[in-house]
Amino acid sequence: MVRCSVYIAASLDGYIAGPNGSLEWLESIPPLDDEDYGYSNFTADVDTLVMGRNTYEAVAAMDVDWPYEMPVMVLTSRPLDVPADLKERVFPVAGDPHTLIASLGEAGARHVWIDGGAAITSFLNASLIDRLIITTVPILLGGGAPLFGPLANERKLQLISSASFDNGLTQATYVPVSSE
Amino acid sequence: MVRCSVYIAASLDGYIAGPNGSLEWLESIPPLDDEDYGYSNFTADVDTLVMGRNTYEAVAAMDVDWPYEMPVMVLTSRPLDVPADLKERVFPVAGDPHTLIASLGEAGARHVWIDGGAAITSFLNASLIDRLIITTVPILLGGGAPLFGPLANERKLQLISSASFDNGLTQATYVPVSSE
Repeated sequence: MVRCSVYIAASLDGYIAGPNGSLEWLESIPPLDDEDYGYSNFTADVDTLVMGRNTYEAVAAMDVDWPYEMPVMVLTSRPLDVPADLKERVFPVAGDPHTLIASLGEAGARHVWIDGGAAITSFLNASLIDRLIITTVPILLGGGAPLFGPLANERKLQLISSASFDNGLTQATYVPVSSE
Repeated sequence: MVRCSVYIAASLDGYIAGPNGSLEWLESIPPLDDEDYGYSNFTADVDTLVMGRNTYEAVAAMDVDWPYEMPVMVLTSRPLDVPADLKERVFPVAGDPHTLIASLGEAGARHVWIDGGAAITSFLNASLIDRLIITTVPILLGGGAPLFGPLANERKLQLISSASFDNGLTQATYVPVSSE
């Protein structure tokens, strides 16, 4: 079995990128010493990252080194121009979530990080999300790329844990209630 | 000075009413003994409730007694058919938020509860919200009436407090950072 988890930050009004796809608002968060909001624990447990094309392009446009050590699968139906230094770390993939997860599982994946609003919504609609770790940033962006898109059905969740941080971030971990 | 506060519950994906304006999903929350999520403390401190017409109609359609003791101002530009038993408790109002709050202040209001997604968004855009108490329900509705609509500008917030409850609800209180 391949598990799929979400680990993502959103504004209080539910956006993961600002009006122009920008991630700059995330840099406005005052950093806390020795606090990574569970990121290193989370990434140590996942072996593959699946993200939508918009998320890939937003990260690629940031003026930072490529931040992921694990293989990154970019969901896209169009040709993807991957820079030479990322050709062995970034791979375009297509297809529906079930088929993709099955093929990742055959290739050895056991725990997949699903990132980006469109990808998360698509995997939720496929009932493939096992856990959501949502960090809420104390800001109203007022517009941009939403974390959650339309779902075919409502999904009840169970709150597993919650935390708050001195810079105003809050974080909640949920698992879907499998009533279906 | 008249203060304006938000006290509202939303799904994790940011909806305050389901796809058909329904509030039934709120009834799926297991009640907790002796826990009202700060509601009685909050309502004891406000003297006036301002809500959008959609919120009024959703509450009026619920099979419960009218739940508000304070005067309720319903923002609408169309005639409002108020039932006879509510004629001294529910009042249609129109106009922009600043004018409305000024007239409520002249009438003696000191702390106004702003309710409903359109009203909250309109008052945020008018920089009239002093505090937001947001309760997040562990459910993804997948569609419906959003809590936050488009804002003219991003608004940084300060987290004042946060809490979680045994039934999976979380609650966070924010005040806007007055950087403008």
